[in-house]
Amino acid sequence: MKTIDVCLTPDLLHLHTDSLENSIVVVADVFRATSCMVTAFAHGVNSITPVATVEECSQLQGRGYLAAAERNAKKVDGFDLDNSPFSYMDERLIGANIAMTTTNGTYAITRSRNAVKVLVGSFLNLEAVVRFLQGERYDVLILCAGWKGRVNLEDTLFAGALIERLKDEYMVPEDSGLMALRLYAQAKNDLPAYLAPSSHVRRLHRLSIHKDIIYCLQHDLYDVIPVLRGSALVSMEV
Amino acid sequence: MKTIDVCLTPDLLHLHTDSLENSIVVVADVFRATSCMVTAFAHGVNSITPVATVEECSQLQGRGYLAAAERNAKKVDGFDLDNSPFSYMDERLIGANIAMTTTNGTYAITRSRNAVKVLVGSFLNLEAVVRFLQGERYDVLILCAGWKGRVNLEDTLFAGALIERLKDEYMVPEDSGLMALRLYAQAKNDLPAYLAPSSHVRRLHRLSIHKDIIYCLQHDLYDVIPVLRGSALVSMEV
Repeated sequence: MKTIDVCLTPDLLHLHTDSLENSIVVVADVFRATSCMVTAFAHGVNSITPVATVEECSQLQGRGYLAAAERNAKKVDGFDLDNSPFSYMDERLIGANIAMTTTNGTYAITRSRNAVKVLVGSFLNLEAVVRFLQGERYDVLILCAGWKGRVNLEDTLFAGALIERLKDEYMVPEDSGLMALRLYAQAKNDLPAYLAPSSHVRRLHRLSIHKDIIYCLQHDLYDVIPVLRGSALVSMEV
Repeated sequence: MKTIDVCLTPDLLHLHTDSLENSIVVVADVFRATSCMVTAFAHGVNSITPVATVEECSQLQGRGYLAAAERNAKKVDGFDLDNSPFSYMDERLIGANIAMTTTNGTYAITRSRNAVKVLVGSFLNLEAVVRFLQGERYDVLILCAGWKGRVNLEDTLFAGALIERLKDEYMVPEDSGLMALRLYAQAKNDLPAYLAPSSHVRRLHRLSIHKDIIYCLQHDLYDVIPVLRGSALVSMEV
């Protein structure tokens, strides 16, 4: 039986070094990087190149990429796009190549390069990810982006949602997966209320980004899966 | 207001380096190291010296200590005591000085040395730990010992139980604490059933240690708190 495991933060990825190259990794940074990426591809973006530093992002901007740089939940001055999914619902982005760096999400993606495949997951494309994984023979590792190395509730809940839909076909070998599954079971009837006291929701509320939170928690809006090809994410329709 | 935070595994302790020296750390390795330690002091042991390696444990044995060495949930050959709490309910241990090394728990204790105080927690002495912390002015960090760097459910549930009893007097700043609190709320009416599918309970069942599990999940049996003084744990009555 295939296994599905959860790495609650990139700071624990060293525990998965051996299994990574035989697994499909699903990276989740629900608030908001991976929700932005899914939204962008659903609206016609051609590619997104995740980079670790603001400097690399600036260099790609100089070479003609549209550039999105976020640090501490805010847009960095001098860049084209912020980290709100609504910024990616724009006809001017159709066919665009974007360079993106965020506090947590893009780092988690670049750390996963050695996997069989690296997929970008969010509640918005949850069912698409489920359908894709069901057709594959590999074990799955869900990598929660967290916040600066810390675990967070929203990415853990995404992991739980994905496991809930796959649990008849996958074994859950470790407690992190069990914890995610049970937290999601407790939360799923009202995710916004359940997440209200969480650290990042409080952080985003201070920045008045409530509508982004509600948007990012919607399930199954889009059928696209961003997948890493070389150094860029491209869209895979399922 | 004081804060209470949770480090889900020693492999994330680097995130707490700055706060450690201003915090009281409560180390939990519910199955079974910290439950053994609490039981040992409740039955009259004089001191327990936690050491990181089997070699150090053997050296202290050569100097007259009773020695307890566990690896992968089993006693290492040549040592005096195993990792079952029932082994510490023995009149011959009254006044004894014990050297102990375990897969996870003693490592977590030795990693916490820079804290204001290092306390040993378990469900068995939960209320004693609560009462002690209520009288102190420091922030609290609960360090879950986990399993070889991975998070585990039982130590996370202990963290949730401690936070539940302290939540009127402490702020929970991070999501790890919130997750622990909510998992415990979900689990507390039947901890053994809730933990049945967890990785370490399955591991212990293979070793036929069911009665240890049930024992370690009992709340508030003892009033002792093992506390680190120099390199040894001694008993503090509350």
